[in-house]
Amino acid sequence: MNSFGRIFRIHIFGESHGKGVGVTLDGCPPGIPLAEEDFLPDLERRKPGAKGTTPRKEEDLPGIISGCFRGYTTGAPITILFRNTNIKSSDYDNLVKTPRPGHSDFVAWKRFQGFNDHRGGGHFSGRLTLALVAAGVVAKKLVNPVAVQARLIKAGGREDIEKAVEEALDAGDSLGGLVECRAGNIPLGWGEPFFDSVESVISHLAFAVPAIKGIEFGSGFASATMKGSEHNDPIQDDTGRTASNNAGGVTGGLTNGNELVFRVAVKPTSSISIAQKTYSVETGKMETLEVKGRHDACIALRVPVVIEAIAAVALADLKMLQ
Amino acid sequence: MNSFGRIFRIHIFGESHGKGVGVTLDGCPPGIPLAEEDFLPDLERRKPGAKGTTPRKEEDLPGIISGCFRGYTTGAPITILFRNTNIKSSDYDNLVKTPRPGHSDFVAWKRFQGFNDHRGGGHFSGRLTLALVAAGVVAKKLVNPVAVQARLIKAGGREDIEKAVEEALDAGDSLGGLVECRAGNIPLGWGEPFFDSVESVISHLAFAVPAIKGIEFGSGFASATMKGSEHNDPIQDDTGRTASNNAGGVTGGLTNGNELVFRVAVKPTSSISIAQKTYSVETGKMETLEVKGRHDACIALRVPVVIEAIAAVALADLKMLQ
Amino acid sequence: MNSFGRIFRIHIFGESHGKGVGVTLDGCPPGIPLAEEDFLPDLERRKPGAKGTTPRKEEDLPGIISGCFRGYTTGAPITILFRNTNIKSSDYDNLVKTPRPGHSDFVAWKRFQGFNDHRGGGHFSGRLTLALVAAGVVAKKLVNPVAVQARLIKAGGREDIEKAVEEALDAGDSLGGLVECRAGNIPLGWGEPFFDSVESVISHLAFAVPAIKGIEFGSGFASATMKGSEHNDPIQDDTGRTASNNAGGVTGGLTNGNELVFRVAVKPTSSISIAQKTYSVETGKMETLEVKGRHDACIALRVPVVIEAIAAVALADLKMLQ
Amino acid sequence: MNSFGRIFRIHIFGESHGKGVGVTLDGCPPGIPLAEEDFLPDLERRKPGAKGTTPRKEEDLPGIISGCFRGYTTGAPITILFRNTNIKSSDYDNLVKTPRPGHSDFVAWKRFQGFNDHRGGGHFSGRLTLALVAAGVVAKKLVNPVAVQARLIKAGGREDIEKAVEEALDAGDSLGGLVECRAGNIPLGWGEPFFDSVESVISHLAFAVPAIKGIEFGSGFASATMKGSEHNDPIQDDTGRTASNNAGGVTGGLTNGNELVFRVAVKPTSSISIAQKTYSVETGKMETLEVKGRHDACIALRVPVVIEAIAAVALADLKMLQ
Repeated sequence: MNSFGRIFRIHIFGESHGKGVGVTLDGCPPGIPLAEEDFLPDLERRKPGAKGTTPRKEEDLPGIISGCFRGYTTGAPITILFRNTNIKSSDYDNLVKTPRPGHSDFVAWKRFQGFNDHRGGGHFSGRLTLALVAAGVVAKKLVNPVAVQARLIKAGGREDIEKAVEEALDAGDSLGGLVECRAGNIPLGWGEPFFDSVESVISHLAFAVPAIKGIEFGSGFASATMKGSEHNDPIQDDTGRTASNNAGGVTGGLTNGNELVFRVAVKPTSSISIAQKTYSVETGKMETLEVKGRHDACIALRVPVVIEAIAAVALADLKMLQ
Repeated sequence: MNSFGRIFRIHIFGESHGKGVGVTLDGCPPGIPLAEEDFLPDLERRKPGAKGTTPRKEEDLPGIISGCFRGYTTGAPITILFRNTNIKSSDYDNLVKTPRPGHSDFVAWKRFQGFNDHRGGGHFSGRLTLALVAAGVVAKKLVNPVAVQARLIKAGGREDIEKAVEEALDAGDSLGGLVECRAGNIPLGWGEPFFDSVESVISHLAFAVPAIKGIEFGSGFASATMKGSEHNDPIQDDTGRTASNNAGGVTGGLTNGNELVFRVAVKPTSSISIAQKTYSVETGKMETLEVKGRHDACIALRVPVVIEAIAAVALADLKMLQ
Repeated sequence: MNSFGRIFRIHIFGESHGKGVGVTLDGCPPGIPLAEEDFLPDLERRKPGAKGTTPRKEEDLPGIISGCFRGYTTGAPITILFRNTNIKSSDYDNLVKTPRPGHSDFVAWKRFQGFNDHRGGGHFSGRLTLALVAAGVVAKKLVNPVAVQARLIKAGGREDIEKAVEEALDAGDSLGGLVECRAGNIPLGWGEPFFDSVESVISHLAFAVPAIKGIEFGSGFASATMKGSEHNDPIQDDTGRTASNNAGGVTGGLTNGNELVFRVAVKPTSSISIAQKTYSVETGKMETLEVKGRHDACIALRVPVVIEAIAAVALADLKMLQ
Repeated sequence: MNSFGRIFRIHIFGESHGKGVGVTLDGCPPGIPLAEEDFLPDLERRKPGAKGTTPRKEEDLPGIISGCFRGYTTGAPITILFRNTNIKSSDYDNLVKTPRPGHSDFVAWKRFQGFNDHRGGGHFSGRLTLALVAAGVVAKKLVNPVAVQARLIKAGGREDIEKAVEEALDAGDSLGGLVECRAGNIPLGWGEPFFDSVESVISHLAFAVPAIKGIEFGSGFASATMKGSEHNDPIQDDTGRTASNNAGGVTGGLTNGNELVFRVAVKPTSSISIAQKTYSVETGKMETLEVKGRHDACIALRVPVVIEAIAAVALADLKMLQ
């Protein structure tokens, strides 16, 4: 069930240490200019390499397999494939037997009866977010002039993000983070009441991103502590503009003519250098695990571009449903 | 787009002040005992009437139109219809022209070009949650022995809920609230990585419930402030049981053998007795609106049974996908 | 799985001898004039009563439960309910034990483990085509000015239909028939290559109609005996108009600017007055069954309006996907 | 909308003369042995090269990109990619301006506003059936021990197929054909009444295959000329076995315990060597077109393995829905 969307539909596939990961985008209209280099800026933002992210080098070169002709989309399904290159599977050899806390190793092994590709998380890997980012690049073109922007606003609860990450790195530990996403210029009326509310569609996709533990729109969890007289956003004019934006741009499931605002909570990276206890499938006892391999001290640093992507994908589909 | 689910599918319809609201449940297996009185306990919990809820009396008697025979489900679609009875549409007559802040009046009117049934919110009304509660009653039978339970844990940020509500009521104001839902006995392995993660499916349905502004699983937003060494839940044995439950029962999108735990933020009821400013569609100016009618000081009081319902619906579908 | 469609979606429910049958139409735009009497002409064409059809009287009065306000569609789901009235279940009492050849009695009983409502075919009944006809009435409004028309062109292989039916009736037997459907004014370009080809969508719905055993577009089965030089339809002008119409109005899965033409084969009514052999579930032996009850000598007489309906539903969805 | 299926889902992509064509299969259970060589026998049957088929040589080597690990399916999406190699696009250069009768050239160009990849039919090409055949190979494993077999039973209406094809070839013309498909060992009860009837699902997929103009189940179009006393299949025993099989193995939309039998009509290949008239987009007049390039005198020769594939895909999904 690796598909999402009604009109603009995305299908993802691939494994962390297999031949590659990719995505097929169906329902994209013809005539949109699209070239492989269009993907590079967003892929660059997702890339590890900065302080606090894994020192692995991934080339992440997108190959457009189908759906483009002479530099434009054709209206046929667009498949984008990322071949895996820099793979060191031996790093993960012992993970089947001593599943890493916080990772999918154990549940994947149980659920797929041992047939899952466990190397680097296999199909559960965060590497699949490459496919989401690629989908986002196309989706952003479709929703233009709607502009979607996400950024990390806190790490470990602190606003001095760089310093917080550095400390975690020094300690061999990891940090969670808070990502905020905003999208302006959205016309009033996208979305549906109930099951296809803007919040439903965006949250569905947001929780498809590994490590996300919460999402809130506008006032979000603060609304639970507020009074109606504080929370209601007075409508100001015929465009639906409101004086405040506690709604976060969505009323009754529909965009209301104001800026869309939501935040997601990103849990700390599960892979840490500090030794941890875990259950050994081999011995049936608790054992000490030291996760070697290469990992991020604060995966939240790389999440904003992924959240932008899923927001754009959601908005593109909602737009096309109008 | 009033449908949700892959195998166990629900389709809702109806309006607040039309002939009725209802739901069709498709994909329910044959042989489940089902009678109209089975719905009453959960409907009772959703009913207004308690202090802090609207004094309207709604009978809310469910009629099973199809899909049951001799007291059992047949395997055919189950349609449950609630006829509307106690309707006072005149209460809402002026709302088209002076849209209520926080309500869908304005966006619905714009989106549906004035053809929407505006009476009492029409198809956007919270009355549609009757259909969700009814679906939940059937879903709870399907997921048995999984037991889903939700309760209001705070109102207006306070734990002395009754007193907090009383104060809001006296002030003609309203309050938000925090609802927690837990589900035990779920086997490891329900859900999918990515788009059909347990969190994706539950959050999609949770945001279909009017007034929900946020959702978090396990540690949720607190995880954004935590370190990996604190957050990771060490696996204890072959069932996947973990010492802590920061994951909230879900890892890699799949149930992990622990209790499912999530919380939703409910915004304060938009309808308040205090006078508010809003844009008048008629005069094109800001005017003062006094919402008469009957309303809840804390709609969050009535939300737990709805959240239970959507959790059960989500779990029933995920179970049947196995 | 009683749903169909991507944008214009129909969900059917109900049983032949339960409380009623109905349909929910989702995705219908707001502002379409719609009243209960709009359904009557097509319902009249489906009604039994003419020579060769069952003498049962069914009132078939449609009740619009939701989705309409002040005579127009609102954009919310439209539910139409037909209450069952003239029911004589005792006619069907022995059918559980001696399943009628050609009917679903036996497979339904096996598949649903005896929980199915067997009365009059229950959810498998041709009475569910009421729901299809009602959906068709709305769909015809949506595709206007596309005009869909179906008629019975042969019964029992003969063109003197009335006489052929009379002879079958006198013999206590039944007859199959051939129904042709044509739709003019369809713009070029509806449909998709492959899975959502016009033929795929129409045939999917056509085989949802009980008793249909075959479907062909344009030259159909005759094309299997033809040469390319005979079969190719030369394009005449920029509208795509062709000199001949062997394609039946569809090329590469898309409407090609010419009249849509297809035919369906309707098998003879399974219920006949002549005694038949069947397996008795009770005795485990072959026994003689005499089907009493009320039935049609040539169900194909009542099929054209149903085929029109499904064609209109298919076209409405394909139109809205553009 | 290049997807099909509920549980076992297939997504196709690619173009005839682009980088390749492929398919993603989602919902396939883990633990099914699968290797690239498993595809070769069915791909061989689809290949051109025999008398009456195009002399093009296509290597058609399948590459498994994802979803397999150590020779078994993992439960993750399986992507199979066929790189295009032997491409001669210049053959097709003039087809944009003088669209070939019977081909999708003109409708594709209109519908996609000239952005479609027209080379060799682009995404509309019969080459996409490679993806269907590959899906069928996996589906056949899933439905085992159900055995699906299709064969060409007539070409140009004649049973001396080889001679008929030779004559057409000599004349520079092409021939239609009739393909019959049978599947044994199917348990009673797959499918659903109405929209997911076995006939609906199979016909939906069958009309996704280019050149198919009709489909009939069991007695098919002959049923339209029959009497009920001839057509009814008497049930013989508790397995549902019937004395005759006019139903073609399906009753009430469900498999009935007998052999599934259906036939499809394949139109003659549209590409013929004989000169044809067509509308010139360039001059706005009728002109004479001579289709050069490489083509099949009787595409129906290559269709059986494709029909087997779509039947297996349909049955795999229906099986998994049980």
